Amino acid sequence: MSACPVAAEPTVDRAPLPVLGNDVRVPLVTGGEVTYAALDYAASAPALRRVWDDVAAYAPYYGSVHRGAGYLSQLSTDLFENSRAEIAAFLGCRADDQVVLTRSTTDSLNLLAAVLPQGTRVFVFESEHHAALLPWDRRADVAVTYLDAPRSPRQAVEILEHALADREPYGPALVCVTGASNVTGELWPVRELTAAAHAHGARIVVDAAQLAPHHPVDLADLDADWIAFSGHKLYAPFGAGVLAGRPDWLRDAEPYLAGGGASRAVTRGAGGGVDVEWHDSAARHEAGSPNVIGAYAIASACKALSEAGFDRLVERERQLIATVREGLAAVPGVRVLSLFGDDAPRVGVLSFVVDGWNSSHFAAALSAEYGIGVRDGLFCAHPLVRTLLGGDRDASGECGAPDGGSLNAVRVSFGAGTPDEHVERFVRAVRELVRDGARWTYRTENGRCVPV
Amino acid sequence: MSACPVAAEPTVDRAPLPVLGNDVRVPLVTGGEVTYAALDYAASAPALRRVWDDVAAYAPYYGSVHRGAGYLSQLSTDLFENSRAEIAAFLGCRADDQVVLTRSTTDSLNLLAAVLPQGTRVFVFESEHHAALLPWDRRADVAVTYLDAPRSPRQAVEILEHALADREPYGPALVCVTGASNVTGELWPVRELTAAAHAHGARIVVDAAQLAPHHPVDLADLDADWIAFSGHKLYAPFGAGVLAGRPDWLRDAEPYLAGGGASRAVTRGAGGGVDVEWHDSAARHEAGSPNVIGAYAIASACKALSEAGFDRLVERERQLIATVREGLAAVPGVRVLSLFGDDAPRVGVLSFVVDGWNSSHFAAALSAEYGIGVRDGLFCAHPLVRTLLGGDRDASGECGAPDGGSLNAVRVSFGAGTPDEHVERFVRAVRELVRDGARWTYRTENGRCVPV
Repeated sequence: MSACPVAAEPTVDRAPLPVLGNDVRVPLVTGGEVTYAALDYAASAPALRRVWDDVAAYAPYYGSVHRGAGYLSQLSTDLFENSRAEIAAFLGCRADDQVVLTRSTTDSLNLLAAVLPQGTRVFVFESEHHAALLPWDRRADVAVTYLDAPRSPRQAVEILEHALADREPYGPALVCVTGASNVTGELWPVRELTAAAHAHGARIVVDAAQLAPHHPVDLADLDADWIAFSGHKLYAPFGAGVLAGRPDWLRDAEPYLAGGGASRAVTRGAGGGVDVEWHDSAARHEAGSPNVIGAYAIASACKALSEAGFDRLVERERQLIATVREGLAAVPGVRVLSLFGDDAPRVGVLSFVVDGWNSSHFAAALSAEYGIGVRDGLFCAHPLVRTLLGGDRDASGECGAPDGGSLNAVRVSFGAGTPDEHVERFVRAVRELVRDGARWTYRTENGRCVPV
Repeated sequence: MSACPVAAEPTVDRAPLPVLGNDVRVPLVTGGEVTYAALDYAASAPALRRVWDDVAAYAPYYGSVHRGAGYLSQLSTDLFENSRAEIAAFLGCRADDQVVLTRSTTDSLNLLAAVLPQGTRVFVFESEHHAALLPWDRRADVAVTYLDAPRSPRQAVEILEHALADREPYGPALVCVTGASNVTGELWPVRELTAAAHAHGARIVVDAAQLAPHHPVDLADLDADWIAFSGHKLYAPFGAGVLAGRPDWLRDAEPYLAGGGASRAVTRGAGGGVDVEWHDSAARHEAGSPNVIGAYAIASACKALSEAGFDRLVERERQLIATVREGLAAVPGVRVLSLFGDDAPRVGVLSFVVDGWNSSHFAAALSAEYGIGVRDGLFCAHPLVRTLLGGDRDASGECGAPDGGSLNAVRVSFGAGTPDEHVERFVRAVRELVRDGARWTYRTENGRCVPV
């Protein structure tokens, strides 16, 4: 073996991971059809081909899990529990962490809210997705401190430090923070926020709905207490999600749902009531027949992302982000929403507004005239988007009444399955729409812009 | 067209509905392999081929629902809402009923428990599945009356009547009752129980987890208030379930989960808190991204069952039940568990014990030596199974310690996808095992019997 005298320039494999739907063709109002450019990954990502193939191969072997005595029941039970272990490995869970299969990030965070010890104080930035913002303030014995949206990662830590210090001494406390914003795509300083939380005796949960599909996550390395994410944003859209982390609060609380699977023994009590002995494991919070296919799909996606190499995926996505950001920067009147500024590390999620355009109108034109699927609205993060839009957003636009949804933004998001062509088409479409205007006429219908 | 002079004898189409897995072959410990006989439908039924094909055809078109502006988002939103409408039609919902997509029957009944008006009194028979038995007793302001298991449909009505009369006057009240028992398969007198509940100002929810897959259900005709069922027992195992019925309690209560989708508007309040305006529709209780594939799969199954003709399916299943019941009756020492006696109408779910056999051992032998998948245990209905077993159950058995799970039963269950051969093989296997004993040796491992 001779040493190679000239080091090859490292190249990034430009091929996206195969996903379903990249060959779907959709009609244009202007005539003809194009392949659909799915640029709404932050809401729901397409299934990885590998995930679909795994689910399809398993489907004939689907059987009841746990107490079923048959061959397929045993196979399905193994598959379900192995999926849990795969997910734990993907997340870098510690040995005693629990992985609870839920239906989504929303469900995971509602579960955590339900198991908080009595008197817990929760700290949450107003900039969170509603799934991370709203679950905490529903118990009389839990107090919530809402923190202002920071304007830098460092300020995020300062605001949290200040709030935590201000509240001492206290009992149990929890910080909830996003790993990557579903509006700006910006990464939050999870490691530093975790250190701050722990320094003040608080725990932390990371909403990784937008982080896990784009970026390696290692719970043990981050030292965070819990992490939550959704299958449908991680290329596994089969109705399952995950809450993983410290077992104690989970074990000490009442079960999330009451029912079979969570109950180890149920007896009629002497007084006519019913006595229940609940499980201590993750099953405690998984009452009902588990969503085996959903869990297996997530495990398959975890494996596919790990095997593809997250370094490569991150580098590839960085290039897609650069294409979009440079493209948008070159178009006059386009303003990209940002808390942390241009230099912030980010995932493939960007929101923007266009001068003189109603965002719903802009999104409708991208779809109808270019076959590009984005999202318009406030992205289930109303306080953050309003803060980012400020009071200066022009409410005019061709489509609908002046206040007909115009105080919204457009969000474009992408990931491991996105071909270069999709983001290139998007950049071209934005440039053409801003320069030439829409070629079609739109009207407002049920608060949305639609082609006439 | 001439009139046909001789009326043809009506014949039942013997073909099962095509399902995944009926061609899966599994190994036997005694050598060779056989096609797997899935006889645990009451836990999880295989996917209908039609459901799978529909899901597979849709999968490339999967997109984010609701605020997505793209073509596939709009297609997926339509598919999701049309699925809700299909399910409503299948259940015979009234015009103003809400259909909430949940994850399972367990989830549906926990949702209903969460939205009960303050001070509601709940009446529930001890014979219910844990999913219907346990969710009610978790709120300090809700009182639960547990009713003894009746020994006839008529007695069920009498017991309920008596309990309701005894409690008057009261505020809001709810009766929860199964449509068909997950242990005995026996149909409960839902119509009569509904009339009794309404006569006393109470409402009623029907746990149709075991009813809906086997029997037509018409909520309006029954006059019941709510119905709950699971996709995974209705040939649609994609992590979704349903609660359908009266909108008022659902609309008046706090959302089941807090998050996006359920929230119409979120603003930072003057006092530093967060103000939320929630949706009034089913979305109120569906926070998080909907499980579109799960909902579509259920709608597809509903359509497939309706189009196949429930009369034919019921009649076919009646014949399978007769084969099993007559077969078991001919084997000495087999006792079928029943609350309502031999003449009770029932679905394809039967539980039994065998003299001298540990049920786990029996189930393991059916699997290992015949390729038949049944279930052993208490079927998440511990009080009912204990009542049915009585104190006379012999705890002996070849496998494991004398108390090693032997106070259990075996359950066999089947449905629209079950070939005649599966139940015929089951009857033969029971006969042979009782007559000749197991041909293999089994040992207890983690509380279960497994082949050595």
